[in-house]
Amino acid sequence: MKANYDNIIHKANTLVEALPYICAFSGKFVVVKYGGNAMNDPEIIKTILQDVAALKTVGVYPIVVHGGGPEINAMLGKVGKKSEFVNGLRVTDLETMEIVQMILCGKVNKNVASNLSGMGVRAIGVSGKDNELIRVRKKPPVGGVDYGYVGDIISVNGEMLRGLCLEDYVPVIASIGVDENGESYNINADTAACEIGAAVGADKLLFLTDIDGIRRNADDEDTLIPVLRIGEAESMIESGIISGGMIPKVRGCVTAVKKGIKNVHIINGTIPHCILVELFTVKGIGTLILE
Amino acid sequence: MKANYDNIIHKANTLVEALPYICAFSGKFVVVKYGGNAMNDPEIIKTILQDVAALKTVGVYPIVVHGGGPEINAMLGKVGKKSEFVNGLRVTDLETMEIVQMILCGKVNKNVASNLSGMGVRAIGVSGKDNELIRVRKKPPVGGVDYGYVGDIISVNGEMLRGLCLEDYVPVIASIGVDENGESYNINADTAACEIGAAVGADKLLFLTDIDGIRRNADDEDTLIPVLRIGEAESMIESGIISGGMIPKVRGCVTAVKKGIKNVHIINGTIPHCILVELFTVKGIGTLILE
Amino acid sequence: MKANYDNIIHKANTLVEALPYICAFSGKFVVVKYGGNAMNDPEIIKTILQDVAALKTVGVYPIVVHGGGPEINAMLGKVGKKSEFVNGLRVTDLETMEIVQMILCGKVNKNVASNLSGMGVRAIGVSGKDNELIRVRKKPPVGGVDYGYVGDIISVNGEMLRGLCLEDYVPVIASIGVDENGESYNINADTAACEIGAAVGADKLLFLTDIDGIRRNADDEDTLIPVLRIGEAESMIESGIISGGMIPKVRGCVTAVKKGIKNVHIINGTIPHCILVELFTVKGIGTLILE
Amino acid sequence: MKANYDNIIHKANTLVEALPYICAFSGKFVVVKYGGNAMNDPEIIKTILQDVAALKTVGVYPIVVHGGGPEINAMLGKVGKKSEFVNGLRVTDLETMEIVQMILCGKVNKNVASNLSGMGVRAIGVSGKDNELIRVRKKPPVGGVDYGYVGDIISVNGEMLRGLCLEDYVPVIASIGVDENGESYNINADTAACEIGAAVGADKLLFLTDIDGIRRNADDEDTLIPVLRIGEAESMIESGIISGGMIPKVRGCVTAVKKGIKNVHIINGTIPHCILVELFTVKGIGTLILE
Amino acid sequence: MKANYDNIIHKANTLVEALPYICAFSGKFVVVKYGGNAMNDPEIIKTILQDVAALKTVGVYPIVVHGGGPEINAMLGKVGKKSEFVNGLRVTDLETMEIVQMILCGKVNKNVASNLSGMGVRAIGVSGKDNELIRVRKKPPVGGVDYGYVGDIISVNGEMLRGLCLEDYVPVIASIGVDENGESYNINADTAACEIGAAVGADKLLFLTDIDGIRRNADDEDTLIPVLRIGEAESMIESGIISGGMIPKVRGCVTAVKKGIKNVHIINGTIPHCILVELFTVKGIGTLILE
Amino acid sequence: MKANYDNIIHKANTLVEALPYICAFSGKFVVVKYGGNAMNDPEIIKTILQDVAALKTVGVYPIVVHGGGPEINAMLGKVGKKSEFVNGLRVTDLETMEIVQMILCGKVNKNVASNLSGMGVRAIGVSGKDNELIRVRKKPPVGGVDYGYVGDIISVNGEMLRGLCLEDYVPVIASIGVDENGESYNINADTAACEIGAAVGADKLLFLTDIDGIRRNADDEDTLIPVLRIGEAESMIESGIISGGMIPKVRGCVTAVKKGIKNVHIINGTIPHCILVELFTVKGIGTLILE
Repeated sequence: MKANYDNIIHKANTLVEALPYICAFSGKFVVVKYGGNAMNDPEIIKTILQDVAALKTVGVYPIVVHGGGPEINAMLGKVGKKSEFVNGLRVTDLETMEIVQMILCGKVNKNVASNLSGMGVRAIGVSGKDNELIRVRKKPPVGGVDYGYVGDIISVNGEMLRGLCLEDYVPVIASIGVDENGESYNINADTAACEIGAAVGADKLLFLTDIDGIRRNADDEDTLIPVLRIGEAESMIESGIISGGMIPKVRGCVTAVKKGIKNVHIINGTIPHCILVELFTVKGIGTLILE
Repeated sequence: MKANYDNIIHKANTLVEALPYICAFSGKFVVVKYGGNAMNDPEIIKTILQDVAALKTVGVYPIVVHGGGPEINAMLGKVGKKSEFVNGLRVTDLETMEIVQMILCGKVNKNVASNLSGMGVRAIGVSGKDNELIRVRKKPPVGGVDYGYVGDIISVNGEMLRGLCLEDYVPVIASIGVDENGESYNINADTAACEIGAAVGADKLLFLTDIDGIRRNADDEDTLIPVLRIGEAESMIESGIISGGMIPKVRGCVTAVKKGIKNVHIINGTIPHCILVELFTVKGIGTLILE
Repeated sequence: MKANYDNIIHKANTLVEALPYICAFSGKFVVVKYGGNAMNDPEIIKTILQDVAALKTVGVYPIVVHGGGPEINAMLGKVGKKSEFVNGLRVTDLETMEIVQMILCGKVNKNVASNLSGMGVRAIGVSGKDNELIRVRKKPPVGGVDYGYVGDIISVNGEMLRGLCLEDYVPVIASIGVDENGESYNINADTAACEIGAAVGADKLLFLTDIDGIRRNADDEDTLIPVLRIGEAESMIESGIISGGMIPKVRGCVTAVKKGIKNVHIINGTIPHCILVELFTVKGIGTLILE
Repeated sequence: MKANYDNIIHKANTLVEALPYICAFSGKFVVVKYGGNAMNDPEIIKTILQDVAALKTVGVYPIVVHGGGPEINAMLGKVGKKSEFVNGLRVTDLETMEIVQMILCGKVNKNVASNLSGMGVRAIGVSGKDNELIRVRKKPPVGGVDYGYVGDIISVNGEMLRGLCLEDYVPVIASIGVDENGESYNINADTAACEIGAAVGADKLLFLTDIDGIRRNADDEDTLIPVLRIGEAESMIESGIISGGMIPKVRGCVTAVKKGIKNVHIINGTIPHCILVELFTVKGIGTLILE
Repeated sequence: MKANYDNIIHKANTLVEALPYICAFSGKFVVVKYGGNAMNDPEIIKTILQDVAALKTVGVYPIVVHGGGPEINAMLGKVGKKSEFVNGLRVTDLETMEIVQMILCGKVNKNVASNLSGMGVRAIGVSGKDNELIRVRKKPPVGGVDYGYVGDIISVNGEMLRGLCLEDYVPVIASIGVDENGESYNINADTAACEIGAAVGADKLLFLTDIDGIRRNADDEDTLIPVLRIGEAESMIESGIISGGMIPKVRGCVTAVKKGIKNVHIINGTIPHCILVELFTVKGIGTLILE
Repeated sequence: MKANYDNIIHKANTLVEALPYICAFSGKFVVVKYGGNAMNDPEIIKTILQDVAALKTVGVYPIVVHGGGPEINAMLGKVGKKSEFVNGLRVTDLETMEIVQMILCGKVNKNVASNLSGMGVRAIGVSGKDNELIRVRKKPPVGGVDYGYVGDIISVNGEMLRGLCLEDYVPVIASIGVDENGESYNINADTAACEIGAAVGADKLLFLTDIDGIRRNADDEDTLIPVLRIGEAESMIESGIISGGMIPKVRGCVTAVKKGIKNVHIINGTIPHCILVELFTVKGIGTLILE
């Protein structure tokens, strides 16, 4: 009886802690970006999508943005096509672009939408090509390298996404852009998430990765930085506290905050129900980047 | 780190458990009846009212019904007035009735409304005399005993209460009735709560008492009956499983269910945040009476 | 036949006179303050409340504000409590304050609400403690005298009152205030009426008293001042035209006008249907104070 | 002072008497038919139209129906045209019909609309030809007499009239009908008023004439019949109580009641403000015909 | 088969051409002024009104303004009345004004409304006397000539016309004005059309005349000026390109454009369906006057 | 000038002919199914999509359904995969199904949506997997043949499609279904179009093919059947008038009509602007199947 009573108290405290947050986020837009190698585990994807469905349940307007690098590589392999990478960007010819579009819009996007729909959510899978959601222009050559069908985002139709959310849809967005001639372009999914968050006026942008957040020492889990003011980011990069692959990620988050998204989080997507814990508890998890 | 991680998982599980309930009760009417000697502890009242405020936060429409026996007795004492009780009912003369009205409507009711208001809730204290909310007729003499200003409820204006709730008020109701001539009558607060719940079409009626619920053996906490079908109640009374002071309470609950309230609960109001635990966890606490 | 015809013409003329006013006040907020010794006659109260009900009928939004000095004194007497008055203000200790609250909120307020309800009006009795309607701070000691639980009004929640009116309620307001800790305070009902009128943006504030209005010579009914511009009030006080107990009353009205209430009237509440005559005839009665 | 006080009391009583009626008629449709020789006095027309304007002021939806026999006759005289009357009906050839239309729609109708507009009312003058408001068919020959362009009403577009009223217009209707080919027809204005009242679901139809109502003895003003049940009308005709020119008038009223208009009144339009007195006093004037 | 196929292609091209215009004019206000001797052919009037009905069908809000000179002259002849014209304006005495009002409001206006209604349109015939739609003042004497009941327009109630249009009516307007005393005045129908167009914020004002538009050489149909900028008009008048009776017409159009009507057209109303062709084809017909 | 005038008259007549249809279809749902080998010409697709955009312009709610056989075959070829066809149905293994989904949802669907978007239309590309739009069950083996991932449609979410249309979207639908486990299934696009039309309550379903309609003699274009009552279809099949590949097409149309779609058309999609001609002219083109 005593243990049971303790359990009740624990639950009561969690609820008392959570309810104000649940209330506060009701009617707010939250962008969830996930993807990458670590997120290929179907069980992990399932708890992430369950959290997205739970957010919808309590009145939050979630928007899911995904990439699909591993699946693209697999298909390119199947048709015997090789990609050249320069400065971390895939040089994308027309044939590659067609494969990218088919995989992102036709496979990953529809499967995510279908999985969410199976949880009772009105998920709808769209891309930058639908209603010109994401308008881009061809990335100009950098250092003499023409990246082909790689685009820089000009605008995101936030009104469309807000409208779909208010009609009770959860938009699932494949990161493909379109130029003024209707041509498709490959775009970076992290950047797309930032621009989408800014366009809809999101309160939160959650980057689900396979790390716990930003650490002062990448190898020491006890050096996690819980809160990072955007004013401190650049000096931490210069002083080497933030280094390596963390640098572009952090810079992306800083840009997102500058574009008006109140809170940007880097959290470990492999922790079950990481989204609920992040949103609905006082301490949250991962690293919060804000102004 | 490990302990922290366990804590996160525990919270996540509580949230995953609670969110569907939070969603399910949004927009529902829940009547909370509390009162009696055990509920005079300001700390206990505070957590009860915090729970009421939390319900409002997540979209539930709570309605509070209260009695005030101890305060009435104290005031009657002050003015040197004694009450005669027959069959558990106070024989109420005009002077007593005036005291009852003043204490319930002027002291307890306004203080509860004020306490809730201090928690950011739009609480409004009303009685059966406002807009003829609770219409009664004088209780006919029983066994030759004229109980004076004791009334039987004829009708409750559920439209008024629903309207106030939809205007974001939390009605706090003093259990005083009015007859067709505008005379005030004392009414039983438990009965009032049942009629109010039925009139607004409440999904839940919570009786907050100082016991854990109905037990097969009043002295053994391990004999708590978690669920009681109304069809079983009468036979359990006859067979002596339910006995003593529990009998009228259970019969009141049965009536409430028959009047259309889906769930009636008897829970221990002295457990902190008992309302949240009851509503937002799978197992709940106390005894649930339903059809 | 002739007499009947004259009567018809008289009625027709009254209607032709009244209809534009009835139209003009439709949708306007009118605060009616009544109270004091002269208004204890149930017959007089009845015609006053009938008028309030009639206003509601033709689309006016009436708000009733009341005091309750005589009833408070009676109850204090019953419990053997004596009040000290300094500069016309009751020095109010905690025990007294509890009696004041019980009488005003529990007795007078509920009885007025009940009487109006019996006339088919959706009357609702509230106080400053409901939804923090009237926020006060403790009156600072004046000339070394600490008045105890006597408050100065900080704010009135006009939006709440307008909302109730638009939901077809007639708010009946007991002049009790609440401070930031939820403590109750005694406030002057005339002052409360002024603040309430200003907060809801009332077009009219009617003070129902037992005199015909302000007279140049208090003993000569033919010296009634029908219209008093607020710019003239102070000089009339200085020159002795307004004197004695009239001074604070007039100053209160001047303040009300300065707070934005278009018309403030002092009328004789003992004239049957004084409110209708004041509002719906060209000449009106009593003294009108305006800018 | 005393006389003044009596006057106040008298006015108060008239208001107390009138307010419930004013309230009761708010939002109701009232058709006012006037016309004929006795109504050519501009002063009388003015008080009638003032009453119509006053009704609008207090939320009633008035609809005015007029004829224009005297003006038609004058114009026919001007152009040297003579009308033959058979059984009280004008035999109407095409040229006469054009004159009738011009006078009713172009002169009387526009002047009434203009006069009402000058009183601040949104009056709009229409005829049966606008939006096919009044559809007729040619009256079949009776006893071998072809009446020419005289029509029997098939339908009235009540939705159009209700719509105009709800848009705050006061429709002023010239009693001209149109057949399926767009041809104009002369129609009886009394009959048109009945059909219009029925089509809009009027609560009242007022026939303003130059008599006080229906009398048992036409020459004795003390024999006025204040209330006439439609079930009694026919027997009163048969027994000769109702006789002469009163017969068709009474039969028209009976038909109007049968078509669903609650109250039909015959009142003396030459009494100043007869409409207000009829609607807003307990006794009313004239004869009321009802079911 | 081939000819049929060509016909299909031709129709398809017309539709592809027309649909964007149909869409563009949906919800716009278009004023159509017609009248004069050339427009007395019932067949021509019929195609004009069919076009008005067609506009309504596709969501345009048409407003018809008409004169009626020939009918007025005919009636004046009938009653043996002669008009004097000074500077092209009819000197209008009271008797003439009554005839003018009767003909315009009672004959022409109601017949146009009736014809449109027969095509399934909710046409409503009004004049400046309804709801004071067109307020005028008496034209001051010019060069010692008092024109009598000839008025200068002060204001047009555009809100009324827009409201009627939004209630799905097609207003048909007789060009009669009213002064502050309710007196009727004759007004120029072209001027009325300009003021009406400006008051409702019309997108287009179409003058239907019996010429193809403005020509450089009045006798040479190949010199039609398709587009005339208002800045050029005056110099074309000075240089004699626009001359004679065209001068006042062009000046009226220039004024209309300056008052905010985007496009003013002079088109040949005798071309069947001239309105549809003007609005829904790329080239249009006639002369377009714009800023 | 004469030729120009003739052209004007021709256009006027086309408009007079078209406007009632344009009005009649406003607010109606029209499903356009196109696809197949003949529709691979980008120029033809362009005029089809232009017509869809034009429909949207004039208030019709178009819904586009497409297949993509040729593109699927091309991709299967690329990855060295062969399909077996039994009874005209592709036996679909999991790997093939993935290719089908990618091509239909990722290539064809997004390109159509993108092309329409480039014409200013809010096109949104969805499939049966979004919000479980098209629910299917696996086709049971027929004659011992297991067709694999080929599905029979259970339901189409018409409310979703109507909602998107009312939000001004043009849904573009890839004919892929989903079962209760979220698995993807190949479905026949013609069948999908019928079910979609029935679910949204379409007024018209247009099958765009490469033939002019149903002919009595397939080789003789003069034997086109313009209207086919569904009651006649079966006997025409039996008598051999309808034969060969026409049989399943006609049977599908009959089913669609039985499911409540008013008109089903088979038209030649290679005629430029065939949709506009079909909808907005009296004669239309192709074969109309109706009840």
